[in-house]
Amino acid sequence: RQMMVNFREERGWGKYHTPRNLLLALVAEVGELSELFQWKGEVSNGLPDWSEKEKSDLGDELTDVLVYTVGLANACHVDLPAAVIKKMEQNAKKYPAERVFGSVKKYHAYEEWKQENSE
Amino acid sequence: RQMMVNFREERGWGKYHTPRNLLLALVAEVGELSELFQWKGEVSNGLPDWSEKEKSDLGDELTDVLVYTVGLANACHVDLPAAVIKKMEQNAKKYPAERVFGSVKKYHAYEEWKQENSE
Amino acid sequence: RQMMVNFREERGWGKYHTPRNLLLALVAEVGELSELFQWKGEVSNGLPDWSEKEKSDLGDELTDVLVYTVGLANACHVDLPAAVIKKMEQNAKKYPAERVFGSVKKYHAYEEWKQENSE
Amino acid sequence: RQMMVNFREERGWGKYHTPRNLLLALVAEVGELSELFQWKGEVSNGLPDWSEKEKSDLGDELTDVLVYTVGLANACHVDLPAAVIKKMEQNAKKYPAERVFGSVKKYHAYEEWKQENSE
Repeated sequence: RQMMVNFREERGWGKYHTPRNLLLALVAEVGELSELFQWKGEVSNGLPDWSEKEKSDLGDELTDVLVYTVGLANACHVDLPAAVIKKMEQNAKKYPAERVFGSVKKYHAYEEWKQENSE
Repeated sequence: RQMMVNFREERGWGKYHTPRNLLLALVAEVGELSELFQWKGEVSNGLPDWSEKEKSDLGDELTDVLVYTVGLANACHVDLPAAVIKKMEQNAKKYPAERVFGSVKKYHAYEEWKQENSE
Repeated sequence: RQMMVNFREERGWGKYHTPRNLLLALVAEVGELSELFQWKGEVSNGLPDWSEKEKSDLGDELTDVLVYTVGLANACHVDLPAAVIKKMEQNAKKYPAERVFGSVKKYHAYEEWKQENSE
Repeated sequence: RQMMVNFREERGWGKYHTPRNLLLALVAEVGELSELFQWKGEVSNGLPDWSEKEKSDLGDELTDVLVYTVGLANACHVDLPAAVIKKMEQNAKKYPAERVFGSVKKYHAYEEWKQENSE
């Protein structure tokens, strides 16, 4: 991350890096990412049918998404690593591993279970 | 990141985590992020007018974007840290710091400059 | 709309036009739309500072968004004009004009008002 | 469309409807649309496995995307129907029906063909 901040500051790009500018840049990059997947139908994990060129382009677009996500957090003075850790801890409580196995059901479904277990 | 992988595997969510499922989940999270900014007009760096609740929600949404970006890279077997480093190095060449100060012009503008300097 | 369906069918593009392919194409077009706005800061209604070229590009991108929205509705067999009319009627009930003037508050705020008026 | 403009004006929502506010609202709606598709894997045309509730939600989200696309065009003073017609005409030239049957290849592939046919 420090690398990204340095890169930007050395080039005087800070003044363009307001929150909504960065958010729209992030949306644009997610659009480019989607473009790589758009006419392919379902795609298997590991992308066995993709060319090296396509995989390399995908790495580039994922990087751009990451860079603007971190950049937006910085412009908003959000401590992103702290936010990640906080959320992972909350999720670990919301979706207890022993219960949700094989399911993507959401929080509400566990309310009952938690009540039972809190008695 | 390892924390995220463990979290997912303990809960048996892997089978839902195909590339296009994760990509659409990423798009959905970017949509939720945009919702936080949508009726606000221009927003200043550091979000001086936002409530603590709004800032906390923003941290959550940025985390979700990050989690699905990393998850999509994993499902595609893309080495995201390596991709980031490769791209930063390429950009450092494409946008030399001494030239682009105060500008967001793109690569093409520097072609001429590079030709001059390669002679 | 019929024009779009003909255009596609004459060219044999139907087989690519599955729901998720079209959805990702829509996301990609919204990304291109965002790219036009991303480094501009706040933009005034009517785009007084935009060049003719930029306005023409904007018309193109808005068209692409519209085409894929209609295409996605078609692929899903959703009657979009009927859905629009249904939703506008629901909204007219949810947000009564005499009450919401100057406000973007949501449905819940009007519950109380509706109860008062239903007595 | 006139229905939408009336609806908005009667409620005094015009001042929130600046170009970038509407663009972010559009992104948010595309996010909600994606949420309906995100964990489903590939989806067949006509959505044979979806419940009536899911189809109705889809109609709502597609409507929201349409409303904000039209709203953004209005805020930018873009004549969207004219832009659609112009683009369809350009595309009809770029992708001649007799040549592209069964293909989604792009413009460049036809350059050669056009040159041959222009002689």
